[in-house]
Amino acid sequence: MHQHEMSTCSVFDGAVFISSEMKLTEDFKRDTHPNKVNLAGREYVGEHGHTTWLPLVRKIKQQIATDPTLFPEYPPILGIPEFTQRATELALGKDSPAIVESRVFGIQTVGSTGAVRLGAELLRSWYCSSSSWSGPILLSSPCDDSLTGTFKAAGIEDVQHYRYWDAESNDVCVENMVHDLENAPERCVVVLFASGHHPTGAELSQEDWKRVAEVMMKRQLFPFFLMSAQGLCSGSLEQDAWAVRHCVSLGLELLCAQSFSYSFGLYGERVGHLLCVLKQNMLAVQSQAEKLVQTLWSCPPMEGARVVATILSNPAHLVEWQESVKGIAEHCMLIRERLRERLRLLGGPGHWDHITKPGGLYCCFGLNAQQVEFLIKRKHIYLLPHGCLNVSAINSRNLDYVAEAIHQAMHSQL
Amino acid sequence: MHQHEMSTCSVFDGAVFISSEMKLTEDFKRDTHPNKVNLAGREYVGEHGHTTWLPLVRKIKQQIATDPTLFPEYPPILGIPEFTQRATELALGKDSPAIVESRVFGIQTVGSTGAVRLGAELLRSWYCSSSSWSGPILLSSPCDDSLTGTFKAAGIEDVQHYRYWDAESNDVCVENMVHDLENAPERCVVVLFASGHHPTGAELSQEDWKRVAEVMMKRQLFPFFLMSAQGLCSGSLEQDAWAVRHCVSLGLELLCAQSFSYSFGLYGERVGHLLCVLKQNMLAVQSQAEKLVQTLWSCPPMEGARVVATILSNPAHLVEWQESVKGIAEHCMLIRERLRERLRLLGGPGHWDHITKPGGLYCCFGLNAQQVEFLIKRKHIYLLPHGCLNVSAINSRNLDYVAEAIHQAMHSQL
Repeated sequence: MHQHEMSTCSVFDGAVFISSEMKLTEDFKRDTHPNKVNLAGREYVGEHGHTTWLPLVRKIKQQIATDPTLFPEYPPILGIPEFTQRATELALGKDSPAIVESRVFGIQTVGSTGAVRLGAELLRSWYCSSSSWSGPILLSSPCDDSLTGTFKAAGIEDVQHYRYWDAESNDVCVENMVHDLENAPERCVVVLFASGHHPTGAELSQEDWKRVAEVMMKRQLFPFFLMSAQGLCSGSLEQDAWAVRHCVSLGLELLCAQSFSYSFGLYGERVGHLLCVLKQNMLAVQSQAEKLVQTLWSCPPMEGARVVATILSNPAHLVEWQESVKGIAEHCMLIRERLRERLRLLGGPGHWDHITKPGGLYCCFGLNAQQVEFLIKRKHIYLLPHGCLNVSAINSRNLDYVAEAIHQAMHSQL
Repeated sequence: MHQHEMSTCSVFDGAVFISSEMKLTEDFKRDTHPNKVNLAGREYVGEHGHTTWLPLVRKIKQQIATDPTLFPEYPPILGIPEFTQRATELALGKDSPAIVESRVFGIQTVGSTGAVRLGAELLRSWYCSSSSWSGPILLSSPCDDSLTGTFKAAGIEDVQHYRYWDAESNDVCVENMVHDLENAPERCVVVLFASGHHPTGAELSQEDWKRVAEVMMKRQLFPFFLMSAQGLCSGSLEQDAWAVRHCVSLGLELLCAQSFSYSFGLYGERVGHLLCVLKQNMLAVQSQAEKLVQTLWSCPPMEGARVVATILSNPAHLVEWQESVKGIAEHCMLIRERLRERLRLLGGPGHWDHITKPGGLYCCFGLNAQQVEFLIKRKHIYLLPHGCLNVSAINSRNLDYVAEAIHQAMHSQL
């Protein structure tokens, strides 16, 4: 019986197969070469060769699992209030004028992707009183394809790019960036990267940020910050949030998508936060956000946000966690220095400042497509386009192999 | 300094305040009356007067929190494979023709709202090979406002309704429903409720479902099932999934949004699943779903799905969990019977079959707006429009009070 409708067409007949962005990870898993290395992953790895729980996070998770005062329940639509308060203070500092003047609110989201999506939908609905705003929004070039996809999926069709990373210097070219912002349409939304840029890792200095903020104000551009790894770049929570706090101090309105994945080692828990600093109209925007959340995921997952809120609320935990974050940042910098030293010793032309100038997880070698393919196919070293890679996956056991392979890729005629 | 831009207008100036759907819950929390009762909540409550963990769920959660073999990581975009496999088998049965013929796949989602949103976006992109399908979609009347909102937010503008619940009989009127489906535009999408209808609780019988399925086939309508509480209506996992399995056995393509909130007592964990039964083209549709997920939340939260997968994979756990589900279903039925008995003894006209005919958490008294307001304002009993209520929040301590209040509301001249 169940066959007799099979001949009619499927309602999904038009669907075409699209290659997954996860293909690299899948290829890596299938690769059986003993020396294979995955430098394209999204997690902080560390010396063990695999991710590990922060001991404090593990402890709090266990406490929550046995806490007799916690009953099953739905969280509020906008998330756990204790979490949103602490996440806001973490980004802006407790004495932020936006907090003092009660013109900021936060929304717990499903990871930072959820924060970007929600922020995009908020902008689309209410940007400049237009109910059909569809851009332009300016993203960095290069940037994650999935970031572009998220804004477009939210109905922001007009996605443009400002020049950010410069292949020649393997660094930010702030001249190009400022030039493009100067020439952007007035009042357009600009996506900025506050604690490390994925996938290049290239960072702006405080002097650079001052120039960028000045243009933002002059041209009435709206900053949408991504702060994906606060603390992991410089080791200091304050320093990594400097650009966001600077814009707030200038009186700018802004959105900021925060991730707690890297800094707490909470990936599968999906802990994100959308910070909204406004001039006025806060309760109205909050109610609009609530309505949008109800159509996206109804309410966010509690587990990870409870862990983060517990740690950020307790002074002793806070100190212990800050030490861990600093340790991760220092470990990444140590690997960068060791990698630079190896490459320097292997000789050949080229400078290596781009390896140690930025902090955080990512750095970029500016390799061409052939060089990247050589590393993946011939050396079983998986990395992102342009030779961007996650330095935390390099350890004592694979350092020499990785350095030699990169050296070969750069200096052979490929 | 931070003041000098404050005078210019906010980019969110046009936003207007909209009242929250959570208002009832907030009003209840603020209410200080000693006899207040919240019958509008979304969780299964039980005799204690508050939600409780299933002991097995609590145990597995603790095991996961201490398991030394689990490292922090992102789950795959479409969720944990073990979970999606078990969730699929739970809905369709292990011997389902769709499983045997490899024409079904499942996607772990952020609760059932996430499953509805993702399903809506999939349909919008690919329904009948049109890249701009925007409806019509048919929802039940009445139905949750947030359900309508979710489809509209996904770009399906043309939302229509079929008659489902009949205020006269406080029951499904299948004649009206079939009539409206007969007259629906061909090939339109119809949202169907497989294990309890929110908020009325009214259910179709198997004979009713057969008639509905026949019209669906004849008119080439596409079923989008919501299965929010499999097992909790009848106490049997098979019986509550009968309608879905019947449609599959007829060879229909369908989507089914499953929730694991009620049946596992996992609310804040946000465990949902979108089941896609197709005729062909499975890998293509799966890759499209992957792309959509990346723009919504990137990947789903792992915690709750791990608990569900662990329980469904272990035969001993499975038996224990099924007993718990049956226990919940029986407890709800017991309360229904006690409530009916009280109301019968209080006398007055009216029949009470609608209280005990359906199973599950919700039932509806078909009250008018004045009667509902009387109960909320004068009796501090919070319930949904039409006098729909969550029976699991009634217990030995408040049963008499609730029954008398409903009796008064129905028989006073309000």
